[in-house]
Amino acid sequence: MFDPAGLNYDGNGLIPAIAQDETGDVLMMAWMNAEAVSRTLETGRVTYWSRSRQSFWIKGETSGHVQELVEMRVDCDSDCLLLIVRQTGPACHTGRRSCFYTAVRDGETVEIMAPIA
Amino acid sequence: MFDPAGLNYDGNGLIPAIAQDETGDVLMMAWMNAEAVSRTLETGRVTYWSRSRQSFWIKGETSGHVQELVEMRVDCDSDCLLLIVRQTGPACHTGRRSCFYTAVRDGETVEIMAPIA
Repeated sequence: MFDPAGLNYDGNGLIPAIAQDETGDVLMMAWMNAEAVSRTLETGRVTYWSRSRQSFWIKGETSGHVQELVEMRVDCDSDCLLLIVRQTGPACHTGRRSCFYTAVRDGETVEIMAPIA
Repeated sequence: MFDPAGLNYDGNGLIPAIAQDETGDVLMMAWMNAEAVSRTLETGRVTYWSRSRQSFWIKGETSGHVQELVEMRVDCDSDCLLLIVRQTGPACHTGRRSCFYTAVRDGETVEIMAPIA
């Protein structure tokens, strides 16, 4: 039986959650508390904890760019989550598919992804 | 020009770094400080900061299970890194390819990956 309370949260009660789509692209990393983990599993809609707003953040609730949970995975130390998701539209608030659109190449930053929306 | 000091570190001076291999598998998540980011870029050998040992952790230095950096990517908020790596052997200390070998399915935890070494 999986118990969200059994995960290893940091001093703020949070655990990092990596969202990856089914093709293997890593889309973003955000944070969850135990209640966000529970809600994500119960609803199938990925729900983070917004550190800046100090509130639950149902991904895509205002933008429509929802993340449907395909599978939640836990790492060996139970201190990080990997979420396999079905992403509608861009995951990044900049309109790009992934938040990781900047690469470091030869000491310079290079944009490797254009906005899709 | 990319400057590791320009990243957004947490209160402990750390930034989460996700390691993904070239096939798309997410292998692990660990932490870096600015010096670890610099060393990783300079040496091409992924170097984390071990929070438990409070020291640099050149991945694979003792186990031989090294991570060769293919590309470092930065997210939109500059508060998370994605490392594309060439992984020798298992990334996980349990001998599994990835640390994310436990899935949550129908409320139960299921092991989805066996040790390779």
